[in-house]
Amino acid sequence: MTLDGKIAQNAQHFSNWTSKEDRDHLHKIEDQCDVLVVGHNTYKAAQEPLSKRNCIVLTRSVKKTKRVSKSCLFYNPKSLPIEKLLRSFGYKYICILGGTQTYNFFLHHGLIDEIYLTIEPYIFGRGLCLFDFAKDSMIHYTLFSIKKLNNTGTILLHYKK
Amino acid sequence: MTLDGKIAQNAQHFSNWTSKEDRDHLHKIEDQCDVLVVGHNTYKAAQEPLSKRNCIVLTRSVKKTKRVSKSCLFYNPKSLPIEKLLRSFGYKYICILGGTQTYNFFLHHGLIDEIYLTIEPYIFGRGLCLFDFAKDSMIHYTLFSIKKLNNTGTILLHYKK
Repeated sequence: MTLDGKIAQNAQHFSNWTSKEDRDHLHKIEDQCDVLVVGHNTYKAAQEPLSKRNCIVLTRSVKKTKRVSKSCLFYNPKSLPIEKLLRSFGYKYICILGGTQTYNFFLHHGLIDEIYLTIEPYIFGRGLCLFDFAKDSMIHYTLFSIKKLNNTGTILLHYKK
Repeated sequence: MTLDGKIAQNAQHFSNWTSKEDRDHLHKIEDQCDVLVVGHNTYKAAQEPLSKRNCIVLTRSVKKTKRVSKSCLFYNPKSLPIEKLLRSFGYKYICILGGTQTYNFFLHHGLIDEIYLTIEPYIFGRGLCLFDFAKDSMIHYTLFSIKKLNNTGTILLHYKK
């Protein structure tokens, strides 16, 4: 995200504004995961790079699930619990890639165990936030590590639940 | 701010959720500054601690300026340019304390030279952002330093223009 807490300027905004070092880190994490989970807007904004990965796309455009390619499954979260779906495939390490609505969904279900947060030295001023989800209380995570990713001011924070 | 980029849950939310180490750092900075600048909502939410400091309160509730106490000046930014007001008092080091509208105002006028950004290990989910201001392009700041403030996961980032 930017230093002012924005992950995109709008829903169509592709994340090509982030540093090479952030993308390298992301790809390393993606390599280690069994599946990537994204929302439909994020999928449409990054369809080309995501086509090379095993993906679940959260969407209301299908009733239950629909396999749209060998590596991509469309899934309506109202049709069955996400835990059940992930377990049915034997997925253990799941990389949640956003956007905001998808992060909301996993936060709401208490399913975010770790957060890798890259802060790029920019200000968007307005845009999409990491979450947009009303909570009565604040949720605490533990800071596990801080890493300076490059000399242009990008840092990587790793939080655990 | 929280790790999800929120500075408060709402306009009335007093910043007593931040760590002692963040408040200690803030007070050190305040001691070094000639004047603090806050918006009317921030002033109302923190009137007691601010009463001990030399303050300018941005507000539409006065026509031009109105001295409400020895140390506190109400000022309508539409009445005269802020640079002119600050220069008339000989103020050089100005601490801009928010909230969102006040940060917007100074960002819009290109008057933010440095940003001290404390990130507390919490998620609010929804709330006020650092800025809420439409920009066509992103604004770049340079990361000057990273400091771990405590063992509970608070970090302090220092950016310069």
